[in-house]
Amino acid sequence: MSTNYFPTPSQDKAELEEGSAFTPRFDAAGLVTAVTTDSESGEVLMVAHMNAEALRASIETGIAHYWSRSRKSLWKKGETSGNLQEIVEMRVDCDQDAVWLRVRQQGDRVACHTGRTSCFYRVVRLQDGAVELGQSPVR
Amino acid sequence: MSTNYFPTPSQDKAELEEGSAFTPRFDAAGLVTAVTTDSESGEVLMVAHMNAEALRASIETGIAHYWSRSRKSLWKKGETSGNLQEIVEMRVDCDQDAVWLRVRQQGDRVACHTGRTSCFYRVVRLQDGAVELGQSPVR
Repeated sequence: MSTNYFPTPSQDKAELEEGSAFTPRFDAAGLVTAVTTDSESGEVLMVAHMNAEALRASIETGIAHYWSRSRKSLWKKGETSGNLQEIVEMRVDCDQDAVWLRVRQQGDRVACHTGRTSCFYRVVRLQDGAVELGQSPVR
Repeated sequence: MSTNYFPTPSQDKAELEEGSAFTPRFDAAGLVTAVTTDSESGEVLMVAHMNAEALRASIETGIAHYWSRSRKSLWKKGETSGNLQEIVEMRVDCDQDAVWLRVRQQGDRVACHTGRTSCFYRVVRLQDGAVELGQSPVR
């Protein structure tokens, strides 16, 4: 399984942006950015990365797979915890270097390793000229 | 203006994940990933990058600024077109290497350089065993 599963991106900008061929533009590390949102709440759950193998597995199984940069291995999200992410829709952006997954969370509906629904549980605030983080409202 | 505006990330995981200090973890290129959604529709508009300067400008002005990797310059989104992005809320993820901006789009409410509301206007589909892109429903 290699990047050959996906055709080489066209050098033609119009084809890349307007065409119907899915030709992901992997970066130097062989990755695209994946943004995952909850298909019901719309909340951004996590930002992760996919290599060709993870992208292909996600498309073919309908379950989100990522590439773990820390473990350097394919990562079927929720394989151990049961918190699988069922893909409702996958989209790609204009220049095909990022994908957006709308998922239905299974199990405990927890995407973050801290046990929270979303990894984005803190708000960045400017308070009296100083930047600080606050907990976002519980959802 | 440098990364010194933001404190150095703690080596202590608990502090990084549970603390109230905003200590973005810039990558080797000095960037964090930024995901921008429409605060009303919830739609993912774009995925881009911010260096310390862009992040600081975004926080201090309340208007989204990014780092253009192609132009290698600070990019005040919509500066020319008038399609500024007013930040309603900024969040950071658990390990502080990605931010999520919920924005109110000004002007024509267009985030994509192709003239569309969102950069994610194509759906990735598996059709009879072949992967293809389809236009997503117009919004």
